[in-house]
Amino acid sequence: MPELRRDPVVGRWVIISTERARRPSDFNSQPPKLRPGPCVFCEGQEARTPEEVWALRPEGGPANGPGWLARVVPNRFPALRIEGDLDPTGEGLYDRMNGVGAHEVVIEAPVHDARMERLPVSHLAAVLLAYRERILDLAKDPRIEYVMVFKNQGEAAGASLEHAHSQLIATPIVPMMVDEELAGGLQHFRIKHRCIWCDIVRQESQGGGRVVLENGSFIALAPFAPRFPFETWILPSDHRSAFEGMSEQALTPLAAILSETLSRMSSTLGETPYNLMLHSAPLRASRLDHFHWHLEIIPKLTRVAGFEWGTGFFINPMPPEQAAKHLRESTVGVKKAP
Amino acid sequence: MPELRRDPVVGRWVIISTERARRPSDFNSQPPKLRPGPCVFCEGQEARTPEEVWALRPEGGPANGPGWLARVVPNRFPALRIEGDLDPTGEGLYDRMNGVGAHEVVIEAPVHDARMERLPVSHLAAVLLAYRERILDLAKDPRIEYVMVFKNQGEAAGASLEHAHSQLIATPIVPMMVDEELAGGLQHFRIKHRCIWCDIVRQESQGGGRVVLENGSFIALAPFAPRFPFETWILPSDHRSAFEGMSEQALTPLAAILSETLSRMSSTLGETPYNLMLHSAPLRASRLDHFHWHLEIIPKLTRVAGFEWGTGFFINPMPPEQAAKHLRESTVGVKKAP
Repeated sequence: MPELRRDPVVGRWVIISTERARRPSDFNSQPPKLRPGPCVFCEGQEARTPEEVWALRPEGGPANGPGWLARVVPNRFPALRIEGDLDPTGEGLYDRMNGVGAHEVVIEAPVHDARMERLPVSHLAAVLLAYRERILDLAKDPRIEYVMVFKNQGEAAGASLEHAHSQLIATPIVPMMVDEELAGGLQHFRIKHRCIWCDIVRQESQGGGRVVLENGSFIALAPFAPRFPFETWILPSDHRSAFEGMSEQALTPLAAILSETLSRMSSTLGETPYNLMLHSAPLRASRLDHFHWHLEIIPKLTRVAGFEWGTGFFINPMPPEQAAKHLRESTVGVKKAP
Repeated sequence: MPELRRDPVVGRWVIISTERARRPSDFNSQPPKLRPGPCVFCEGQEARTPEEVWALRPEGGPANGPGWLARVVPNRFPALRIEGDLDPTGEGLYDRMNGVGAHEVVIEAPVHDARMERLPVSHLAAVLLAYRERILDLAKDPRIEYVMVFKNQGEAAGASLEHAHSQLIATPIVPMMVDEELAGGLQHFRIKHRCIWCDIVRQESQGGGRVVLENGSFIALAPFAPRFPFETWILPSDHRSAFEGMSEQALTPLAAILSETLSRMSSTLGETPYNLMLHSAPLRASRLDHFHWHLEIIPKLTRVAGFEWGTGFFINPMPPEQAAKHLRESTVGVKKAP
């Protein structure tokens, strides 16, 4: 059983998972080799995954068979497990609990060599629908406080399988980074009675040169203080705290701006590895005036080293105004039909 | 001029540095190739670096010539610059200031292919002395609030030059991570009137299986909630808040335990890349009852991916009790003469 442990000084939780690697020799600095298909995530290989928990089959058809656009299965090597009780215990100064939660894989396309930014917008909207449906379902479990949706594209960004996929990890604790955003948002709201992300959207729309794209419902922008070169955030233009509260209709313009943003990154930077993370309000307090859901995309272009790990400061050699300009002026992505 | 910018939500500062890379094509996911010597850091090549700010020449000799054991020079491509005023300014919601600070390189040995853990203990003590002397000197500049000492070993850990070196970055702001440790330490102290790291040292010494080494003055341990496999901390056994307050005498047992810890890591994991970070009290409040300086060593064995970047949670497949056991039972390092 994995275990959740809390650092007694800073309160950071870690997942101690013993099921993936045990011996020192199992830690190999060599990246995993990504293999050509067909793989366990390919259409026709459904029997090789755990039983699906969600799928979109536009033409219908039985579960765990072919004919799907997007499909969600439990992770075979989960970081957290759905069985059991949290059973929080102390050990002197320290706190731990059982690693209860869920870890699922969203297979984004039936073919092996798809890439998220090359999917048609309607297909990408189905992937976003998978995120929403799984969050809504996992929220029914009272032990779950948060669902983090993320994507690792490329082995340098942490992917161990080539087939296009995202992941959901449902945790019994609201993660530290979301907590920090909640605290920052609340502090601003208490003083100004406004959502800080709404203020950011307003200020960026009015100028400053950091907007990448706007489509009426969403905005893609380079944040003022990005940790990484070409870091890009996508936010709903109007106040929305919970991603899972989005209507199915609203997922289409979101898919459109996400697709266009990723395409422009690709045409500007090449098919670079990246991480994509969804920050939404905690499940048990999902309608908040002081939190605004958003996607964060961080291309993997620089190395995080001792200074960053030691300070929490990041050194970013690309001013966001220049990054946004490059992405705005990139036109390759625009050609793709919606 | 580099610029410091603050994220308006979470308060994280980033350094926007435009002097290293500008065009999208300058960001190459390929790691830098480490080159064989002689390099600019080798003995005999002193004229190729900026003028030294400190050096230890046991036999004497003029500055910027050969005969040194350890040598400190300004970084030729500094993340922060020593010239100018901070000049903090606002831009709507946002805050920025000039990137004033210092960035220095500690060249750890005159020969090209040295590795920190293979240096004799007396030589490593000279490197630690360089850290201390530079912190004490940089502290005289009233604009500087903090000095982060760190080392990136191996290109996967962010090193761009092979020759053994550490770095110091002096910042006009106390870094977020140190602030979080200060806040956690203060919270514990307010309730218990004890330093939390002193409590950790006491609890670990009494059992739990996470001690790697103890030598009377220092302890090396696997922390209870490590972010990374084989993450190891070294702390003074007695309460000390500021590294630069250590006597020269005390640096020898510190060099001994650091050398032995790194050697055991090497013999357990191979010559793995790692980051080493020094957390010391802020310069302007260096004598604190609630802070305890420490070294953190994080081998680069796993990839940080979307889940970690999105949550601040880390997934660690190596329980610290097992990591400490492997390092305790490793004996190769022990053979080295002190």
